[in-house]
Amino acid sequence: MKTSTLIPHALKIGVLLLVSAFAVSAEETPAKINPDKPVYGDYQNWRLLSISHRLDKQTLRAILGNDTAIDAARKGNTKPWPDGTIITKVVWKEKNHANWPQAIVPDTLEKAEAMVKDQKKYEKTGGWGFAKWEGNNLTIYDEAKSKECFACHLPMQSNDYVYNAPVLQ
Amino acid sequence: MKTSTLIPHALKIGVLLLVSAFAVSAEETPAKINPDKPVYGDYQNWRLLSISHRLDKQTLRAILGNDTAIDAARKGNTKPWPDGTIITKVVWKEKNHANWPQAIVPDTLEKAEAMVKDQKKYEKTGGWGFAKWEGNNLTIYDEAKSKECFACHLPMQSNDYVYNAPVLQ
Repeated sequence: MKTSTLIPHALKIGVLLLVSAFAVSAEETPAKINPDKPVYGDYQNWRLLSISHRLDKQTLRAILGNDTAIDAARKGNTKPWPDGTIITKVVWKEKNHANWPQAIVPDTLEKAEAMVKDQKKYEKTGGWGFAKWEGNNLTIYDEAKSKECFACHLPMQSNDYVYNAPVLQ
Repeated sequence: MKTSTLIPHALKIGVLLLVSAFAVSAEETPAKINPDKPVYGDYQNWRLLSISHRLDKQTLRAILGNDTAIDAARKGNTKPWPDGTIITKVVWKEKNHANWPQAIVPDTLEKAEAMVKDQKKYEKTGGWGFAKWEGNNLTIYDEAKSKECFACHLPMQSNDYVYNAPVLQ
């Protein structure tokens, strides 16, 4: 379970770069999904966990949590996050605000992805199922794609593989 | 009511710069507030309208709406926003993510401010009362401070003085 401490740092960076290259190409072609495992929700109504601006991707992101996630965040019960947690990452291309160019604001929606916590079901990927929203349908990625996602989250092992820190208490 | 079209562009920029300088000094001293007009809420539970990264202020912002605001946004009923709308702007200082420096993420909370719609009550400032959250207490700024806030929102007159465009439908 201590994978990240067993992998030398240089190798980890190499894996990250490889995975990043992979991720870029994956965005250009339809992701392989597993239609046998749909989960439903309406993330547009979920509450906020955090936000970010990815300078390397030129995207803005909102990180939203379902009720289980918000409850866990407010109780500080996130190491690990409880089963049933779903964290959604909504990604928009960035643009400059027309009336205030030094404000970077969302342009078109790029994608919405999610991490679904089930310690047993997704044991091979840190207890997280990696998924993609298509409208209100959440579909878990297949094992190969999930492992790609997980590899990028490995550096955050000590934070239960989650990059964001909840900002509203 | 057509103030922005009556003010020449250069003068408007001058006013904006003046107001910006004022706003910076206002952040350094306690804001003058009007304790006679408190409104209560728990904006931490509100849903998301938009996000932004202000490069000029080195801050990240989440724009949240109360139920009236979210309902109006989803119906496209925002010109004007209905009375009862409250839009909250939560502002965090920016920082680079420790494990992914090209991601700009929230650091400490700087402030949370709001715009409260009441067309009659706040007629002098476009129907918006400008306010500040102190914990869960929302206090309307006094007239002088509200006019300062409003001056910065004048360029958005055609959008009912609101900078953000709702991103989740």
